[in-house]
Amino acid sequence: MRDDRSAGRVTLAQVANQAGVSLSTVSKVLNGRPDVSAPTRVKVEELLEAHGYRRSSSAVPEAPLIEIVFHELDSAWSMELIRGMQNVAKTAGVSVVLTETGTRHSPGADWVEGVLRRRPLGVVLVFSTLPDELKKKLWSRAIPFVIIDPAGDPEPDVPSVGSANWAGGLAATRHLLDLGHRAIAVVTGPEDMLCSLARLDGFRSAMAMAGVPVDPGLVRFGDFHVQAGYDHAMELLRLAERPTAIFAGSDLQALGVLEAARVLGVQVPEDLSVVGYDDIPPAQWSSPALTTVHQPLVEMAEEAARMLLRLRQAYQSDQGGGDRSDARLGQADTRIEFATRLVVRNSTAVVKSATE
Amino acid sequence: MRDDRSAGRVTLAQVANQAGVSLSTVSKVLNGRPDVSAPTRVKVEELLEAHGYRRSSSAVPEAPLIEIVFHELDSAWSMELIRGMQNVAKTAGVSVVLTETGTRHSPGADWVEGVLRRRPLGVVLVFSTLPDELKKKLWSRAIPFVIIDPAGDPEPDVPSVGSANWAGGLAATRHLLDLGHRAIAVVTGPEDMLCSLARLDGFRSAMAMAGVPVDPGLVRFGDFHVQAGYDHAMELLRLAERPTAIFAGSDLQALGVLEAARVLGVQVPEDLSVVGYDDIPPAQWSSPALTTVHQPLVEMAEEAARMLLRLRQAYQSDQGGGDRSDARLGQADTRIEFATRLVVRNSTAVVKSATE
Repeated sequence: MRDDRSAGRVTLAQVANQAGVSLSTVSKVLNGRPDVSAPTRVKVEELLEAHGYRRSSSAVPEAPLIEIVFHELDSAWSMELIRGMQNVAKTAGVSVVLTETGTRHSPGADWVEGVLRRRPLGVVLVFSTLPDELKKKLWSRAIPFVIIDPAGDPEPDVPSVGSANWAGGLAATRHLLDLGHRAIAVVTGPEDMLCSLARLDGFRSAMAMAGVPVDPGLVRFGDFHVQAGYDHAMELLRLAERPTAIFAGSDLQALGVLEAARVLGVQVPEDLSVVGYDDIPPAQWSSPALTTVHQPLVEMAEEAARMLLRLRQAYQSDQGGGDRSDARLGQADTRIEFATRLVVRNSTAVVKSATE
Repeated sequence: MRDDRSAGRVTLAQVANQAGVSLSTVSKVLNGRPDVSAPTRVKVEELLEAHGYRRSSSAVPEAPLIEIVFHELDSAWSMELIRGMQNVAKTAGVSVVLTETGTRHSPGADWVEGVLRRRPLGVVLVFSTLPDELKKKLWSRAIPFVIIDPAGDPEPDVPSVGSANWAGGLAATRHLLDLGHRAIAVVTGPEDMLCSLARLDGFRSAMAMAGVPVDPGLVRFGDFHVQAGYDHAMELLRLAERPTAIFAGSDLQALGVLEAARVLGVQVPEDLSVVGYDDIPPAQWSSPALTTVHQPLVEMAEEAARMLLRLRQAYQSDQGGGDRSDARLGQADTRIEFATRLVVRNSTAVVKSATE
């Protein structure tokens, strides 16, 4: 049951001594018991970390939970990731815990304290990065973590799952070019996100390969929400030379484009072709149903959950205490990128000028 | 720390004796420790239950988790409930665990075993009922549970949260009547769900109060998904005497109605007014944005989570072992029903025939 005791005894005794607490208190901290004061817990955790003490994962039974952490639970996108986690969790007989950090930044020390109390089998972070000291805390407790990073900006020392943004931009643009469109506008995501830039580069490459110049006035950046799509489309559709197609950076933006078209009396797809990105369920429900780039969010989350469980197993066969670098070995250099694919529905059609 | 020991000692010793195991094994079962075989765990749990032993909740620290259980994670609706749980959880410093049972029926014994291992502060069941023996297991372990039951069919001995379906049906219909519509069709939910019937009755009452006869051919039942709305609308809009308005049982159905209208070249809202139900985020994103009945899903889940935490506190101040009826007292007779309200957007307009 407690086969780390022999390996870890000296260290634990030292820790107790240095912290000025009993060995039993150190053991309580390791066991995630609540009857330890917060300052004592912090002090003991810090000493454990300083000593490079890594608890053998078999020493203390972890909870049958895997955790997924969001900045913010948005409606459709988050749900797809949750479904993927849930699919793997159900098969593995574990449950999914959700955390919403409520900030655009990394989860903080509070969150890590919570993780150490909950002791999940592992943690999936969506779009997040972790400061080094928090990474060390998780590593020291043998809690693996994986980043779902569709933005394509993974940290090198953390395993991550992403998808092929450049290829997605290329495929969407080629589809529009094949339909005869030349005046193609792009509303992509924020300028500081690599995924936006990768998709835009895919768009530019497709245009260049077709010998079609890109009109800089038709390239727009915005956040991924409905309103950004609406606002940009209202401007684009009022231009003297109106684009015949708009490639949006997300399905939500594309829904905003559809609404702008409706308000301005522009028929989709007759007068305007619209392509979305993501293929969340509302893309199928819109009128007309959206042609979009399928980002396999469910599969990405499934893979992230499976990576966690594999890392977990690797930790379990790596029983030694003490050497934290062992734990890191299992983490590094894993990046899985899922293919994106175009899903053609009813929001795109052959350009009018080409058929007239 | 273990203040139930004095009250419960005889019972625990009896249980150990009858189960043919040591007192320490009984204690392990009570503490949710994994190093007990499944058959032993089951036997001990059964004896504990037979003796009406209820563990004082302060005896064993529970995990800082609250659990929400779905039959099936559907996209938009489930997410709203998760957000509500998350809002309260974050404030209370706890995390949300998700379970998807994957069946239309009650969660099974497996799930309850999982709950006993996870030891959440409490459980919220969405749309579910629990067989009596599973209820007893949760009661015996002082794990409170609350049902979110928008269908309006709560079990009398379980606290539940719902919303005012009849009033929602009434409000939607009155809105259409006020706009001059008389040929109003209804596509409501499944015929065997009380929420469908309550909304339909609200519709009938509004029609009767306005002296407008209900055409039985314009009343349809279907599941709550997009396809049902589409299929019924395709039929309704091809009738010789086409309805001028359709009141859908869900926003997803209403999105299906919008698509049928688009396919048939019927303009919304000029030629057809459409009202949805639920007010999930996609209702705002559709073209045109949906007039709908707001069901406060986030608030309902928040209230359910708060009820759990209150029940938890009630359990904690009710320290005695042994008497299960005490635990039930905290559970019964609580039913909170949230008001629904009409949200008018762009999918409804004054009927054409009334203005011409």
